[in-house]
Amino acid sequence: MAAVDAENRVERLAELLVGFGANVQPDQIVAVGAEVGQEELARAVAEQAYLRGARYVDAVYFDPWVKRARIAHAAEETLSFVPSWYGARLLALGEQRCARVHLAGTPSPGVLDGLDPARAGRDQLPFLKEVMTVIDARTTNWTIGPAPTPGWAGLVFPELESDAALERLWEDIIHVCRLDEPDPVAAWEERSAALVGSAERLSERRFDAVHFQGPGTDLTVGLLPSSTWGAARFETVDGIVHMPNLPTEEVFTSPDPERTEGSVRSTKPLLLQDGTFIRDLEVRFEHGRVTGLEASAGAEALRGRTAFDEGAARLGEVALVDREGRIGRLDHVFYNTLLDENAASHIALGGAFESAVGEADVPRLNRSGIHIDFMIGGDDVDVTGLTRAGERVPVLRGGAWQI
Amino acid sequence: MAAVDAENRVERLAELLVGFGANVQPDQIVAVGAEVGQEELARAVAEQAYLRGARYVDAVYFDPWVKRARIAHAAEETLSFVPSWYGARLLALGEQRCARVHLAGTPSPGVLDGLDPARAGRDQLPFLKEVMTVIDARTTNWTIGPAPTPGWAGLVFPELESDAALERLWEDIIHVCRLDEPDPVAAWEERSAALVGSAERLSERRFDAVHFQGPGTDLTVGLLPSSTWGAARFETVDGIVHMPNLPTEEVFTSPDPERTEGSVRSTKPLLLQDGTFIRDLEVRFEHGRVTGLEASAGAEALRGRTAFDEGAARLGEVALVDREGRIGRLDHVFYNTLLDENAASHIALGGAFESAVGEADVPRLNRSGIHIDFMIGGDDVDVTGLTRAGERVPVLRGGAWQI
Repeated sequence: MAAVDAENRVERLAELLVGFGANVQPDQIVAVGAEVGQEELARAVAEQAYLRGARYVDAVYFDPWVKRARIAHAAEETLSFVPSWYGARLLALGEQRCARVHLAGTPSPGVLDGLDPARAGRDQLPFLKEVMTVIDARTTNWTIGPAPTPGWAGLVFPELESDAALERLWEDIIHVCRLDEPDPVAAWEERSAALVGSAERLSERRFDAVHFQGPGTDLTVGLLPSSTWGAARFETVDGIVHMPNLPTEEVFTSPDPERTEGSVRSTKPLLLQDGTFIRDLEVRFEHGRVTGLEASAGAEALRGRTAFDEGAARLGEVALVDREGRIGRLDHVFYNTLLDENAASHIALGGAFESAVGEADVPRLNRSGIHIDFMIGGDDVDVTGLTRAGERVPVLRGGAWQI
Repeated sequence: MAAVDAENRVERLAELLVGFGANVQPDQIVAVGAEVGQEELARAVAEQAYLRGARYVDAVYFDPWVKRARIAHAAEETLSFVPSWYGARLLALGEQRCARVHLAGTPSPGVLDGLDPARAGRDQLPFLKEVMTVIDARTTNWTIGPAPTPGWAGLVFPELESDAALERLWEDIIHVCRLDEPDPVAAWEERSAALVGSAERLSERRFDAVHFQGPGTDLTVGLLPSSTWGAARFETVDGIVHMPNLPTEEVFTSPDPERTEGSVRSTKPLLLQDGTFIRDLEVRFEHGRVTGLEASAGAEALRGRTAFDEGAARLGEVALVDREGRIGRLDHVFYNTLLDENAASHIALGGAFESAVGEADVPRLNRSGIHIDFMIGGDDVDVTGLTRAGERVPVLRGGAWQI
């Protein structure tokens, strides 16, 4: 029976990502973004997409070992080069109203170990700046979902044998994706409604800023006049409702890139795309800009990222996560942004989402070729809304909504 | 010691493909085309390219299991659809004067087993019609080389254990790629010179047609007035000399698509890209067109290919292989065109190469979205040149050049 379940879980996850997450429509082209090592889920996603009438599934596998060869050997000045057809493809996906399914996870942990982090930081691939353009244009129905692999499982559960670690990771993924519910889609509809409700209540307050206070943290993140909070469900310009992240537990907005002030201590370690671990991170902001960055591991690598471009040292996102979510309760680190960012309130350095502000504020949004989330929330971090009149309104206390 | 050799052989093969085959130049973008399962050589190729100063290596992995899902489930009318950005990328590779390294072999034999061959035949991917455009434009320096994998080895040596089969395939590949020579590049220069010499002597004769005669074969392939024979070395418009195939043992030209007459029996089985075996193939041509096609296996699938488009039932290539080559002497089938077509004289259904004719004859060349080589030569197949005056000139007898 175990074997049957094991086979079935890949299919169930793929079905959730295709049918509910990206909400693939008949005759759509479906872009699947994966990493070498994630073939099993990528193929299941392709199969589900074709079963739903996809016209074509374009599965693209990024190979981090080829990236390793680049960081190791390529000329310094070429490291940020991106071939013209990478961005062109992404823009075409938008123009042709395609669906996108991206698989998250770290199938090859340690692949960039031993390389110069400053060189590694100049190469942001597979991330493309055009991703933000396409998201903002709302022309693709898309989702990011987790792909359990032996490599990732070993990273999350280093104390377990390889098979046991993979089983354990699958159990977690099934739980946080609500695939253990009799009707996972209904469970997600319910959770989405709760998240959207929180987002609406937050938006109605029209806070001028949010304040995070906890151990090592005293941070004020200024918002834009039109900043509104979003959650869970997106809708394309053609009216296709989709879930950009599965799982998702966050309520987020785009902040004022000029008005982040104070200090913040990260509440979870972070694994950069290039394999660098960032531990015990502490960041200081002045007038919206990072002016100090310390960590017990990976500080230099992250400092390199903040120098990537003009916007890389400013915030593009602030997000709140309450303790009703399923990920935070598991209380371990997945070393993957999709899961970890939905475990705790977080902020992100880099590009902002246009959909979170009114048209008038779009020019004020932060722009960058990076978008790096890091976790700053927890039960002992109070979140308070600051009104324009100077009033302080409790938002999260002990991880629970106060509004 | 064995482990060191094993590691080293991947690197040596990659070095030959990058440095001599594609002849990658500093600051070039290098496109690597591979299939899932060929990661080891693809990564070694990337490393060698970066060591030679490549600006970027774009490794693209085609996943035949995703193709399987398509053939199994997609709507009939979508099966020949190709996303716009596939061809656009290839044309950009030409415009931007990139290098291309393509890996051959069959890492996943049997992946399309049990599917409808007629449906499979409508999907020619990963082959793109723009490949012929870019080759004809001579804007990329490119090579195709073999990638030994366990899957391919099992296909070639089904009687051996998996490890032994892979070792045996590697031995063959090292031999036919002349990597067992003290100086493989020098060995290739020498063999290339011999092939180019044969091609020049053939071209000087300005044959009107070539005639193949052997068991089950009595076939005349008419040539165009300007058909010239080429071999081994190509040169880009920018003067970069490269080896399009490694190994290569053939001398080829583009025939007159209207003047193939007679019957031909294939001398080796053929494995189509979609996994269909074609055995004991016999084809009849009238006025250049296939009018009969029989086989003990795969006839229906190949008939499907000949209906792919207008040019798919006519010849785009005729090639002669003498018995001095290393592949034919191994006397087994690799079920891969790169190797098998260099084991014996062959013809190809589908698109022709512009470089093999003068400008005046380019409009007369066969055009098609397919290019399928099949082997018709051997020691017992005589090849004779027919002059415009009606003279018969022996070209190959017992596999040896007569001119």
